[in-house]
Amino acid sequence: MRIMAITFEEALASVLPLARTREMCEVSLPDAVGEVLARDVIADRNIPPFPRAAMDGFAVVWTGRETERPYRVAGTVNPGTVWSGEAAEMDCVRIMTGAKVPAPFDTVIQIENAEVGREGTVRFPTPARRGQNIAREGEDVLRGAVLIPSGTYLSAHHVATLSSVGQWEVPVYKRPTVAVLATGDELVEPWERAHGPMIRNSNAHFLLAALKHCGFREVRYLGIVRDDREAVMAKIREGLACDFLVVSGGVSVGDVDIVPDCLAACGVRKILHKIAVKPGKPIFAGGSPGGGIVIGLPGNPVAVMVHFSMFLRPLLLKASGATEYLPKPILLPLVEEAINKSGGKKFSIGRLEKKGGETRVVEIPSHGSGDFVSASRAEGVFEIPLGASHLPAGEIVRFYPIWGNFLSHEG
Amino acid sequence: MRIMAITFEEALASVLPLARTREMCEVSLPDAVGEVLARDVIADRNIPPFPRAAMDGFAVVWTGRETERPYRVAGTVNPGTVWSGEAAEMDCVRIMTGAKVPAPFDTVIQIENAEVGREGTVRFPTPARRGQNIAREGEDVLRGAVLIPSGTYLSAHHVATLSSVGQWEVPVYKRPTVAVLATGDELVEPWERAHGPMIRNSNAHFLLAALKHCGFREVRYLGIVRDDREAVMAKIREGLACDFLVVSGGVSVGDVDIVPDCLAACGVRKILHKIAVKPGKPIFAGGSPGGGIVIGLPGNPVAVMVHFSMFLRPLLLKASGATEYLPKPILLPLVEEAINKSGGKKFSIGRLEKKGGETRVVEIPSHGSGDFVSASRAEGVFEIPLGASHLPAGEIVRFYPIWGNFLSHEG
Repeated sequence: MRIMAITFEEALASVLPLARTREMCEVSLPDAVGEVLARDVIADRNIPPFPRAAMDGFAVVWTGRETERPYRVAGTVNPGTVWSGEAAEMDCVRIMTGAKVPAPFDTVIQIENAEVGREGTVRFPTPARRGQNIAREGEDVLRGAVLIPSGTYLSAHHVATLSSVGQWEVPVYKRPTVAVLATGDELVEPWERAHGPMIRNSNAHFLLAALKHCGFREVRYLGIVRDDREAVMAKIREGLACDFLVVSGGVSVGDVDIVPDCLAACGVRKILHKIAVKPGKPIFAGGSPGGGIVIGLPGNPVAVMVHFSMFLRPLLLKASGATEYLPKPILLPLVEEAINKSGGKKFSIGRLEKKGGETRVVEIPSHGSGDFVSASRAEGVFEIPLGASHLPAGEIVRFYPIWGNFLSHEG
Repeated sequence: MRIMAITFEEALASVLPLARTREMCEVSLPDAVGEVLARDVIADRNIPPFPRAAMDGFAVVWTGRETERPYRVAGTVNPGTVWSGEAAEMDCVRIMTGAKVPAPFDTVIQIENAEVGREGTVRFPTPARRGQNIAREGEDVLRGAVLIPSGTYLSAHHVATLSSVGQWEVPVYKRPTVAVLATGDELVEPWERAHGPMIRNSNAHFLLAALKHCGFREVRYLGIVRDDREAVMAKIREGLACDFLVVSGGVSVGDVDIVPDCLAACGVRKILHKIAVKPGKPIFAGGSPGGGIVIGLPGNPVAVMVHFSMFLRPLLLKASGATEYLPKPILLPLVEEAINKSGGKKFSIGRLEKKGGETRVVEIPSHGSGDFVSASRAEGVFEIPLGASHLPAGEIVRFYPIWGNFLSHEG
């Protein structure tokens, strides 16, 4: 039995056009992390908004003769205050970091280079450079410039920018709704007893956790359904009310793999079934009559964990309005040779380790796509391309840190 | 004025011992991501819990003579079912992936290598290997083994393991409570109008977002306090009720930098003030009378964004019970030379880019630690060690992807 399969890249490219964004909504700034920006964030002022002292010290009008005689200290300017005194030629003002440098001063001499005398005078023994220690108005960005483009998947560090321009209500895209269904007569829930030929449902709970972690909140868990056509079809119809329906299990070629047939009977148009990739060969993708996307993942836990990030998340993020939705690899050398017997692209599980002064990819030995225990020690996957059955040690591979948090017990 | 400063590593090492864990509590599995496991997770069964068919096909008792004559198909075993028929010597059972391989069968011949005949017979034209296509009971892990060690910062992929062993209630450490205080006469809140010498408070809102993103939920925002001793001390006393008090601004050497004095007046014991690092030189750390930790960060937004991850988060994660709490670097070559005029360690902002078939670190031009706009384009920081004023192009640096999410618009 020969299985015709398209490449992983073709598969993703064939489904991505179906991922369409929903309407915009507003969230308040504390809830913005993990959301996708729906309108450019614009600078409402120049940044810095005024000539800003970058050091504590004294503001002077630069002449190039600062070292020649003492200055009179005509006042003090702290952050948040405006100095409106009159300054004679050899006057200066004491100024603190972050304060607005008042006209006509154009140079700040740091306090470390000042000798404060009696009776409100100060000497500067070191020559000064015109404009030194001042962040010029607008030097970072000019009013009206785009600070964060629409489509950005917002991280905590974007919150600093949003705060600085006073954007408390943040326009974001509504996230797609997602339904999750687990299939298989062998499954019980984690809170149930598992004995004999039964195993606990880990895929659906992984998917629910991963979706939640990626900011998808409208997620509907449809539970476990037995390998029975009527029961499966009833659950599929429920799930088709969501923008995405993700089914785990039942998509392979065995007698109990009834999901593709049931999907067809519910009006789901097949886009692809089988991809030349390991794990994940039996992946199914289809379009629902209502414009939704249906993804069938195999029942193997490692396949589900890999393709949540590699296949499903790109679709979910694109449907969330993100302009960057594909996993970005780090190109790093392999510590040891790696083998690919699959005939397609292979995603092998691995970790990043420091070897010989550089970071390299270490493959984690695994018993295959059922071995979620080995996968739980991995930080991500690396790619062995279709057509490559063997990569030698030292070969540069694409490593995707899909499970790593870049924390270590050593610095 | 000469500033005595300790190294960044010494600074972190001097504060880490103060970070102590709180008691344990339980969360249910859907809330476990981002929490720190407080007890080892143990396999309650062998994994796999039974000899499991890894392919759809036929289970046989291996003899090495499978190709010689047809087998009788004595029954079918699906996942979740137990076959209890009697099998004669040349009998086999049809079996589906994930099903328990019944005794006495020890080998599965995949359906692709089977010729199903009439009257319930099947022929196997290809020789079989004893034990093939069966995941042996316990081959991934034996009952009683540690699957996830205590102290693990749980990611979504750990949820698969927790589900599989039926751990619905997950023992985790209570996270420390954190108070956040912004100081500075120049600050207004993001929802207020900023004009003249005033700027919007971005640091506190960044810190609140970053804390929330890292799973800290008991966070108390103390607002903006003016540069006034009584007002600052009143807020500090409020904040000392928490396990951590994080203050932004007011820790430098200027006239308005009254925070260290105010902390001392509130009984906070200084551990360090000034670190040989850029940005972040004025960082203050102290111990409160109640056993809490006080961290004073400079008012510069880039310093706050860098040291949330590099200095503060290690303390917070250690106090959360995590065994891996230090940022893990990726060692990668620089695209261009990098300069360090600071005299200490420098964290420069950068991105990862694909150049010449490998991933390299690109420094992002910046106007310094006030330039949060440039930082918002960065994926992280790389380190120029203390004592190195110049690193040539191609030099391997430690890159910390503290702001990156490893997403791209291209695959």
